Amino acid sequence: MATAGSPRSEYTLRRRVHFYETDAAGIVHFSNFFRYMEEAEHALWREAGLSITKRKAGIGFPRIATSFEYHRPLRVEDEFDVCIKVVGKSEKTMRYQCVLTKGDETIATGSLTIVCVSTVDGQMKAIPIPPDIASRFTVAAGQ
Amino acid sequence: MATAGSPRSEYTLRRRVHFYETDAAGIVHFSNFFRYMEEAEHALWREAGLSITKRKAGIGFPRIATSFEYHRPLRVEDEFDVCIKVVGKSEKTMRYQCVLTKGDETIATGSLTIVCVSTVDGQMKAIPIPPDIASRFTVAAGQ
Amino acid sequence: MATAGSPRSEYTLRRRVHFYETDAAGIVHFSNFFRYMEEAEHALWREAGLSITKRKAGIGFPRIATSFEYHRPLRVEDEFDVCIKVVGKSEKTMRYQCVLTKGDETIATGSLTIVCVSTVDGQMKAIPIPPDIASRFTVAAGQ
Amino acid sequence: MATAGSPRSEYTLRRRVHFYETDAAGIVHFSNFFRYMEEAEHALWREAGLSITKRKAGIGFPRIATSFEYHRPLRVEDEFDVCIKVVGKSEKTMRYQCVLTKGDETIATGSLTIVCVSTVDGQMKAIPIPPDIASRFTVAAGQ
Repeated sequence: MATAGSPRSEYTLRRRVHFYETDAAGIVHFSNFFRYMEEAEHALWREAGLSITKRKAGIGFPRIATSFEYHRPLRVEDEFDVCIKVVGKSEKTMRYQCVLTKGDETIATGSLTIVCVSTVDGQMKAIPIPPDIASRFTVAAGQ
Repeated sequence: MATAGSPRSEYTLRRRVHFYETDAAGIVHFSNFFRYMEEAEHALWREAGLSITKRKAGIGFPRIATSFEYHRPLRVEDEFDVCIKVVGKSEKTMRYQCVLTKGDETIATGSLTIVCVSTVDGQMKAIPIPPDIASRFTVAAGQ
Repeated sequence: MATAGSPRSEYTLRRRVHFYETDAAGIVHFSNFFRYMEEAEHALWREAGLSITKRKAGIGFPRIATSFEYHRPLRVEDEFDVCIKVVGKSEKTMRYQCVLTKGDETIATGSLTIVCVSTVDGQMKAIPIPPDIASRFTVAAGQ
Repeated sequence: MATAGSPRSEYTLRRRVHFYETDAAGIVHFSNFFRYMEEAEHALWREAGLSITKRKAGIGFPRIATSFEYHRPLRVEDEFDVCIKVVGKSEKTMRYQCVLTKGDETIATGSLTIVCVSTVDGQMKAIPIPPDIASRFTVAAGQ
């Protein structure tokens, strides 16, 4: 575990499947995995002493690419872990990888790339990630 | 059918159940009926020449009360109708009733009350509905 | 706190708003309060040693009526409590009340009525709640 | 346009953004693009005279991989098109590409791979796509 002030590279969220996240096939709808990944991302930011959502006026982090591969289904009330890792940083973007596991089973693996933008008059423009945010994250070892 | 310029009191939306709206019990999750009702409300506003969502800066219509009674379930790919009616208007609020039907079966009946607010510094305050909005709606006959 | 084996009458769930639960008005969409209430209900059932979702084949608990009144908005990353109470029991139904609070502010108050059904050939029929389930819940004091 | 009986390779769905699909950033939440893609897929299957959801007992089509790249945001009440194409078929899988456009702007591009499974005692096993389903789809020209 990193000390309080050091930059973060990963976070693991424990989660339980909610009933409304399942579909008529009896398993979690595939779109919800992207919501689980984002929950873990926001928890990582909170661990880093930041909030991705209550940021300076006009600065945001829209998603520019994301993916999931599904290996096993999740069912109602299953408990599972969502581990998200920073695997890449550039001047304006950050890239995560994400693994969902239930016990020692791998459920799914995902990726997510975000970009820092400023919004002026409703138009988004990519800008460098502010240093006080960029300095709070480091790429996970082995990436 | 009302002429283009006359105030509106109701709208019926034809809709099909999406797979992701069902749950592991094989039926539409009860929370989604509130989304169906709101879709019909927004279509009613568009019919009235308005948009509930692209309104003047700082004016909004949050929901203050809502309910549904469920009579029969909806299943994947079912086609159904959502009929929403204005059943009450006051200086600051508007009240709707909503009936979902599939063919000649009644599926569910709902209600929704909205209030006009202005938002200043993140605080919402109830205000009179602007006349150019209030004049576009009339209470349905028989209410 | 009730001892392990005694019947339950209420449960309080601590929850944080997820980003995807908000809408373009910057607050939690009103439909999601029904999902919060159901999460608390399912947690109450787990506390009672039951699962509302992994029940005996053919027995289910569809919702027959629900409502919410909204007093204050919830915003991204807000922490809040969802307290659900059993306020009524009949042979075939159970009724809950629900209060959402953030610190000492009341956010919203809801209600939910469920009915026990058996499903045969896709048709639901109301039946008495099985004694091993009914005996696990008791109406909250003061109701 | 293909004649009624010929196999299908693509479908374009016209859609409007619902308010509850937006988030506090004022744009459609990225997870909802996967729901739009699935809506178009199910419409393609209906065009082909099939239903992906009311299939023979025990046969299903879970998703094994999916992705989206986001180019421009969608906002409340925007109208847009979702074009889905079959770009690959194997004995047990089918692969789609998907493009979302608003007028002549490209909003996002996605991919989706599904696999045919039979479910026995809750366990999914990949099986060949039944001929009466496989024969209804053909890979789009130029793929």
